Amino acid sequence: MEPIAYEQSHRYRLRHSAAHLMAQALTELYPGVKLAIGPPIENGFYYDVDPPQPIKEEDLPRIEKRMKELAKLDMRIERKVARDRDEARRIILEDCTLGQGEETALYKLQLLDAIPEGDEVSFYDQQRFTNGKLRRFIDLCRGPHIETTKEIQAFKLLSIAGAYWRGDVKNKQLTRIYGTAFETQEELDAHLHNLEEAKKRDHRLLGRELGLFMFSPRVGPGLPLWLPKGAVLRDVMTDYLKKEQLKRGYEPVITPQIASIRLYEKSGHILTFKDKLFPFMEDEEKETYILKPMNCPFHIEIYASHMRSYRDLPIRYAEFGTVHRYEQSGEVTGILRARGFTQDDAHLFVTPDQLEEEFIGVVDLMQAVLKKLGLTDFRVRVGTKDPASDKYVGHDDNWAMATRAITDACDKMGLEYHVSPGDAAFYGPKLDLIIKDALGREWQMGTVQVDYNLPERFEIEYIGEDSKPHRPIMIHRAPFGSMERMIGLLTEQYAGAFPFWLAPVQIAVLPIADRHVEAAQALSARLKDTIFDTRPLRVVVDDRRETLGKKIRENQHQKIPYMLILGDRDLEEGTVGVRSREGGDLGAMSIEGFLALAMG
Amino acid sequence: MEPIAYEQSHRYRLRHSAAHLMAQALTELYPGVKLAIGPPIENGFYYDVDPPQPIKEEDLPRIEKRMKELAKLDMRIERKVARDRDEARRIILEDCTLGQGEETALYKLQLLDAIPEGDEVSFYDQQRFTNGKLRRFIDLCRGPHIETTKEIQAFKLLSIAGAYWRGDVKNKQLTRIYGTAFETQEELDAHLHNLEEAKKRDHRLLGRELGLFMFSPRVGPGLPLWLPKGAVLRDVMTDYLKKEQLKRGYEPVITPQIASIRLYEKSGHILTFKDKLFPFMEDEEKETYILKPMNCPFHIEIYASHMRSYRDLPIRYAEFGTVHRYEQSGEVTGILRARGFTQDDAHLFVTPDQLEEEFIGVVDLMQAVLKKLGLTDFRVRVGTKDPASDKYVGHDDNWAMATRAITDACDKMGLEYHVSPGDAAFYGPKLDLIIKDALGREWQMGTVQVDYNLPERFEIEYIGEDSKPHRPIMIHRAPFGSMERMIGLLTEQYAGAFPFWLAPVQIAVLPIADRHVEAAQALSARLKDTIFDTRPLRVVVDDRRETLGKKIRENQHQKIPYMLILGDRDLEEGTVGVRSREGGDLGAMSIEGFLALAMG
Repeated sequence: MEPIAYEQSHRYRLRHSAAHLMAQALTELYPGVKLAIGPPIENGFYYDVDPPQPIKEEDLPRIEKRMKELAKLDMRIERKVARDRDEARRIILEDCTLGQGEETALYKLQLLDAIPEGDEVSFYDQQRFTNGKLRRFIDLCRGPHIETTKEIQAFKLLSIAGAYWRGDVKNKQLTRIYGTAFETQEELDAHLHNLEEAKKRDHRLLGRELGLFMFSPRVGPGLPLWLPKGAVLRDVMTDYLKKEQLKRGYEPVITPQIASIRLYEKSGHILTFKDKLFPFMEDEEKETYILKPMNCPFHIEIYASHMRSYRDLPIRYAEFGTVHRYEQSGEVTGILRARGFTQDDAHLFVTPDQLEEEFIGVVDLMQAVLKKLGLTDFRVRVGTKDPASDKYVGHDDNWAMATRAITDACDKMGLEYHVSPGDAAFYGPKLDLIIKDALGREWQMGTVQVDYNLPERFEIEYIGEDSKPHRPIMIHRAPFGSMERMIGLLTEQYAGAFPFWLAPVQIAVLPIADRHVEAAQALSARLKDTIFDTRPLRVVVDDRRETLGKKIRENQHQKIPYMLILGDRDLEEGTVGVRSREGGDLGAMSIEGFLALAMG
Repeated sequence: MEPIAYEQSHRYRLRHSAAHLMAQALTELYPGVKLAIGPPIENGFYYDVDPPQPIKEEDLPRIEKRMKELAKLDMRIERKVARDRDEARRIILEDCTLGQGEETALYKLQLLDAIPEGDEVSFYDQQRFTNGKLRRFIDLCRGPHIETTKEIQAFKLLSIAGAYWRGDVKNKQLTRIYGTAFETQEELDAHLHNLEEAKKRDHRLLGRELGLFMFSPRVGPGLPLWLPKGAVLRDVMTDYLKKEQLKRGYEPVITPQIASIRLYEKSGHILTFKDKLFPFMEDEEKETYILKPMNCPFHIEIYASHMRSYRDLPIRYAEFGTVHRYEQSGEVTGILRARGFTQDDAHLFVTPDQLEEEFIGVVDLMQAVLKKLGLTDFRVRVGTKDPASDKYVGHDDNWAMATRAITDACDKMGLEYHVSPGDAAFYGPKLDLIIKDALGREWQMGTVQVDYNLPERFEIEYIGEDSKPHRPIMIHRAPFGSMERMIGLLTEQYAGAFPFWLAPVQIAVLPIADRHVEAAQALSARLKDTIFDTRPLRVVVDDRRETLGKKIRENQHQKIPYMLILGDRDLEEGTVGVRSREGGDLGAMSIEGFLALAMG
């Protein structure tokens, strides 16, 4: 979903009207409730209110019921523009409060005062006289809204949270009631199902349950400790990408975790990236160091360590580089948004002639990576310069050339894309891959950026065929984005049931009784001698003295792709009982038969 | 060489006497020279002197010549003890200066004053009356010395440096003249040859020439940037050890680069490791972080993340963990002593019953690793508690048990070792592997430590067979020590000519003329499709338009194990001309024949 498209959509207006409908229900159920603001948001709407008595989650069904009743009244929602401020003030004090007293208009009056002089002041009004009683709700609002409350049928109130008036902790804490609305019940049901699913798939929960990673207060927020299973998963992904990169002519480099601030003064990050830097470390020798926020300046130092010829280019330096960015502790979210994370980073140094071909090569690699990970539903966004803004550096010619290289590359690859002006990096245009996951949520993952700026700042060169110095262009790219973020996404995408090649444990061997343990160990050893994707198969033996049923349940809960069950019959006949995570009991097979199935 | 044994050796006395002989030559050649101190040192001796005019390197042959002349006089070297301080003072002023004036006795008088009252004051005196002239040298000295100057035959003066009197920059800078001496000319020649070799093998020089790593002033001292070839070498070593560890039941973990200081307060490193910590980072939220100096506390956090049973032990967490230690910038030495480096670290959590077996397993792995690296000449030192010191923590029973576990393990493995009291870590005894390199130099590399202290500090437990909580024992170990230090050693050990399996580039393909380039590329592609040690062969094509002779010389200088030369004859007959780094031209072979040779 495009932000702009959404704000112009029917759904956006529907949700806005649902927020008003909820406010109307609240004014009826909680006389004297003070209304603040009630906008539509990405997946629904909310209204911040200041009720005469606390509203709790268990009150939501009652509010919903009243909303349904009001919706059925088929009130037309009409826009009214106040002639002047005085009239606006009168509407708020008289109509909006519906005789509930001036005090209830407190926040609305403040909102009115915040509207710049000369701007239009509009209201949205919905009413119906029924059973001898006027039911009415009129709210200070820019709109737009739908036409009648009757359209608000598929909605749900979701949760309650606290929120400070105007987002300022010095102000009063209001009650924020969240809800969502859709055009149809089917869409609402699907969304509610997805919300449930998302809770179950929360990578923080699964990360703990599956033993992937942990956090510790003695270490600090946003600093994950990778447990053995998570570390194996990372290793498998890293090995895969390393191999792909080797095939495509990348060379590995490894650079330090810290650097003198002089490096980042030279690159400009000290200024442009200031907010995300960890505190500096000043040593006794008056040298100041910072934790590396980005790998690029190091790769440039390596490029610049000796004179390059056009014959040396393209140079492609790849590093699984750990970087640190100081996210506010309230903003860190599991491994999706961490303070320390490892980018699958690379920087390509190319001649202008090579730019398009290398760009195609990078996008091809990124597509191959996403396909391997099973993330096949994605769209392409080309972020270009906003012609109206002055925040960009570099010559217009370079921008035009780089942008054309990107769009030409997409055209040549037959890749659909949409151009998003203003979404470029400040130093050059970029291409982002935006993935839609199994729950329909969008994630911006891999990125490719074309950079004329850092080569300029570091004054790097190569000697061209004409024996004169030229400036190379840099391409920044990270197909995973970061190991942390990609594994977070994959965990939610697969609900922890990783594909066979990625699964931290691929096979669990379950001896039925003690007399089968020895055979189970032997089977495990044999499987571990089997190489799959250049690594030994990852096998555990569950020889706990528990019932087979319990062991099956627990290994299923661990989302292990295959369980091999060993009993008397199997020992006699040289078979194993195979259970697959998705297919359940597959019956007895020979080991060879199983391996062909699993590795085929 | 044992430090203690050396100090009691004839060689030590010989070098001490050579220092005196040099001083005697100086007093004759530079009348009025003031002598300070002249001890034997690890590989020779020096004397700090304050000469009336500057002494330069080009003066050394003249001094050597005079020393040889004096040595031949066969002066007996006699020890004399002063009756009291007054007599000592008189000897210094009259005999030691030999009438060259009181001023020359300046430093010796200060040395006399520094000898504690009541201590014996001894002199060593050598003299001969010859050709009507007394040749004499008497020096304030504790000794011991050899018996006659005639023994000093195989010696060499090496270099001149500045050195502050008493090592204090506020004092006068003296002239330090270095030399060495051996019992035989053969030994001296071998040593001088080794010195020349060591210069050629200096890993800093080779690291640059072979493109392994670099440093940058914008990054900072002790922070290496690994260039592609060095990064490949590291990767190959890392992959090898990961595979070995996987076979031996280690589990990978990955932990952050930084932690709250609370973690290191808990571990005690904030106090015990204070001098080596980088400056702290205090953030706006009043949390203070430090760069990780050691991985152990993180691994303990992982162990402690849930309750463990005796059935879970031993647990073996392995991490290639990058740590930072604040070495003084004057002390950093290439990658042998860096500020940021990556340990091949692991921590084993074991029950007391498992300690010996696990210890044996660790030592076995370390031996396998050293053998694989070709470092077969090493000795074993068991560092134990110094019974006289109080710097150790933990119960005596535990110490006795742990020490016995180590020595029993060595006995069981048939491993010779010597016990070095006082060389334990403060928390437990340890075993060090001390490697002798190709030049006879010793390097302390891998270490295994037994630790009762950190489990105690972190109060970690497991539930035993008796259903009660018990404390596990930790084993710390690092077979390489660190990637940086081991690669530094290997570079010097092999003078950059790494064994085939380790070489960053294994094969260079050299087309003789332009018309052979296409075939060279095809051959390279074929070789890169060949898997060796689970990795594709590492091949370059040298298609520069240079003479074959020049290309061979330069690839030989890059120490590439094999060159494959392609000319008309080879294209016709389907062969390649093979040159090996060590064996030179091996003639024409089929590709299969070459692969069998290289990979066999």
